[in-house]
Formats: sequence, C-alpha cells, structure tokens
Amino acid sequence: MARDLRREAPSVRRIGVETHPDRARRALELNLVERIAALDEAAEESDLCIVAVPVDTSLQLVPRLLDRIGPQAVVTDVGSTKARLLDALQTHSRRSRFVGGHPMAGTENSGPDAALEGLFEGKIGILCDVHASAPDALACVRWLYRRLGMRVLEMDPARHDAQAAYISHLSHVISYALALTVLERAEADPGVFGLAAGGFASTARLAKSGADMWAPIFRLNREALLPAVDAFRTWLDALRNAIERADEPALRQLIGQANAIREALERPLP
Amino acid sequence: MARDLRREAPSVRRIGVETHPDRARRALELNLVERIAALDEAAEESDLCIVAVPVDTSLQLVPRLLDRIGPQAVVTDVGSTKARLLDALQTHSRRSRFVGGHPMAGTENSGPDAALEGLFEGKIGILCDVHASAPDALACVRWLYRRLGMRVLEMDPARHDAQAAYISHLSHVISYALALTVLERAEADPGVFGLAAGGFASTARLAKSGADMWAPIFRLNREALLPAVDAFRTWLDALRNAIERADEPALRQLIGQANAIREALERPLP
Repeated sequence: MARDLRREAPSVRRIGVETHPDRARRALELNLVERIAALDEAAEESDLCIVAVPVDTSLQLVPRLLDRIGPQAVVTDVGSTKARLLDALQTHSRRSRFVGGHPMAGTENSGPDAALEGLFEGKIGILCDVHASAPDALACVRWLYRRLGMRVLEMDPARHDAQAAYISHLSHVISYALALTVLERAEADPGVFGLAAGGFASTARLAKSGADMWAPIFRLNREALLPAVDAFRTWLDALRNAIERADEPALRQLIGQANAIREALERPLP
Repeated sequence: MARDLRREAPSVRRIGVETHPDRARRALELNLVERIAALDEAAEESDLCIVAVPVDTSLQLVPRLLDRIGPQAVVTDVGSTKARLLDALQTHSRRSRFVGGHPMAGTENSGPDAALEGLFEGKIGILCDVHASAPDALACVRWLYRRLGMRVLEMDPARHDAQAAYISHLSHVISYALALTVLERAEADPGVFGLAAGGFASTARLAKSGADMWAPIFRLNREALLPAVDAFRTWLDALRNAIERADEPALRQLIGQANAIREALERPLP
C-alpha cells in the first residue's frame, strides 16, 4: 500500500513502524516509507494508521492505536479474518475511528521486498461493519482503496469470514498439505521435483506463505474454516473412491462438474 | 509442438490428424499444420508421428501407427502415464520404432488455440524405456525435444508414473476437489467468488482441465495415484486436526515444514 501511495498520492507522508531492523532498513532503502518511528509516536502523528500485522497481533495493536491517535485520525487493518477483531472492538470508546478492511490481494511473499507495484489495481477491497465507523473515517478508507485501484464491497464480518474460508484460507490449507506430501515423498525419491512443472508450481505456490501470518488466521477463523475443510475432504473422497474403483464415468462426471470453475471465475461480479 | 517446430525447424512439413472438424479448421487457420489428413495416410507419409491424445486412446492408436509407418519412421507420444502403454507395446514387432515420452509442460487449456509459443523452452522432457527403442528412433525424438528447448531425462516407466502421480496428477485431483467444494458453496452463497483473488485462481487453475484427458490418466495411473492421494489425506487431516484443536504451535510446525517447498522448487536439478 505504501508503495502505491507513493505514486498515487505523492503528497501523503508515509511513516513506517517495524520491529525487525533489517526490514525497517529495507523499507527505507526502497523508499516505501520516508522514516521509521516507534509505534506510539507514529500513532500520535498520523491521520491514518494501516495495520498490516498477523491477525492475532491486531487484537492487541488496534485498541492500543485507537487509544493513541488524534481525535480525527483513523485506524484500518488489512487482516484476513474480521469477526474476532470487530467483536473485540465493539465496546471500545473510539470504535467509530476504526474501519475493518481486507484487500483481496497478496502473494506468498512478505516483507518490504515483496511489495508489488499495482498489486491492488482492479482487485476487490472488503470493508466490514461500516455502520460502526464514523462517516469521515469510512470515507478516508474508501478513498485509500479507490486510490489504489480497488473496487469496494461492504460485507458483514461473519459472511466475510465464511467466504474467505472457502475462497482463500482453504486454498492455503490444501497447498500446505500438498507441499508436505511431496516433500515427504522426496525423502524416499529425491528426483520427484525434477518433474515439477507449471501445474505443481501453481498448486503449491501458496505453501510458501509464512506461519506468522497463516497460523493465526487458521486459529482465529477455525469456526468458518473447519466446515470448508470437511466439505473439501468429502469431494476429495469422492474423487479418490472413483479412482480406486477405476470408475471412469464417475471421474468424467466429477471432472466435468469441476470444470464449471472456469466460467465461475470469468463471470463478472454481481 | 507443431507451433514451435514451425519456427525452430521450418523445413519440417507438418501434417495434422484431427477428428473434430472445427479443431482441424483452426489448426489450419493458425498454421499449426500445413494440411489435415486421415490417420493412415498421415502415418504412411510421415517420418515422425507425435501422438497427443488421451492416454487410453494411445493404447489403441500407437500399435495401429506402428503397423502403418514406413520402415525408418518413428512414433512417439506425449502421454502423462507411461507404464501401461509401454507394457502393451512390449510384444509389438515394431516396438523399436516407438519412443515413449512425456514433455513436462502444458496448461489447463486444450485444442489448437491453446498452443503456446515457447511452451517447452527450459522444461524437462522425460523419455522412458529408451533401451527398447532403436538408436536412430531415439535420436530423432531427442532431436525434437532439444529443438523445442527441453532438457531430456531418461527414466523407467514405473518411476515416471509414481513421480508424475505426486508432482502432477495429485495436483489435479486436489484442484478438482477444491473447485467442487467452492462451486457447491456458491449454490448457498453466490457471492463467494467475489472474493476470489490470485491465491484461489492459482490453486483452482488445474480444475479447468478437461475430462477427456484427465479421467483416463487417473484410471490408468490408479496404482501410483492412490497412495499419493492417501498420503495427501494424511497431511490434510494433520492440518485439519490442528485447526480443530486451535493448536497454533502444531500449525506453525506444519506450515514451517511446508515452507521448505520454496527451496525445493528453486533447487537446480540433479
């Protein structure tokens, strides 16, 4: 976000808060931020605080920021689960200065060097529980999302968490399980990665995503994620059993049904 | 292959054999081939026949081609399972004119319009049971692979099929199951695809692959694929149970272990 704001809103001053010295140095070298400051100092100076930390850390960090920011300032987050954070903030006296967000964009990489120009262009940005945010705070975050090229969708947090479980978190669970399977196989058969082509790279890409970000997402979104994983297991078993029976008509039926994903992904948004 | 041969070996004449009239027309329009011919006619005229059909069709087609080609001509295939075909050919009187191959490249699309320039550049091309092919037939197919930019690896067919099960076929099974899961969810919650971003697109991409190609691969490679699917289920259950227990240390351990896939995919081939 800092990278694109530099280009899209050059008058905006960008202050970074970063506990890892190497990452702080790189953020400065890459000119993602103009300076690095301590958390409380940055909070007091800023009109808008963008919280991009693991979702469990947000549970502590967002209330602390809301306690520190100026009267007209705004806090937003980019976390992949929303209900737990918004529940925790319900009784906060400055709740209206917070806007819960989730830009649907990212990669398996993290840190300053992973910042991609134009990452958010044409993507969906979710805002949750907007009725609990002050109109000017909401307008500020909508401005941010639009300036980065996102289309804004408003959604209640439970629905966001359920949809994110199916369309994002489940893909990560699957990709980790695939990586673990093939890494285990490689112990017995080291040549197996020699055959890796685009298909495997595509399916296993998300397994490069770090535990600091994803373990808390899985834990905090447990209630929505477990039914998604169990639904996936049911379909996996249907395919597995058709393979075991060498039942080609059943395989053709399942594959044909899965092929509808092509049209579903190309259909314009409602 | 035809598309790149046009550029890389312009003196080679390319004859297409295609049962779908629309695809035959497009192959001509795109100049992938210079003409379309009936199978037996093309077999009699060609120095090299490249069989790119579903793997069960190859079981009938390759013997028929071997019966029709001239004494110095060569047949090769590009199928994703090798043991069944090579077993079936063992007693064929012209076995030595066949070279079993598998270029490790492709996409979820098929048909003439899916031909990509440079698809094979830098990829691995597997050749199986090369000792059963005549030296000149093998040299012809090695020439083809290298001309298209592939690095050739020789491998016995059982090992190929086991490795392909883990590194390619399993990814397809998983991707189909993911697509079926989210398509089912979309019946109850049509907005779910609104949140689809790069992660889902990456993991679900292979689910666009057609049943004509993939149902026979799953059936013919059943013996190698089932253990791979079962190993995947075991890792999936380990992740699922850690999520159910909200066991963040276990999740961090599993994710950290899966992250080794980054290095495994970047490691140069042995």
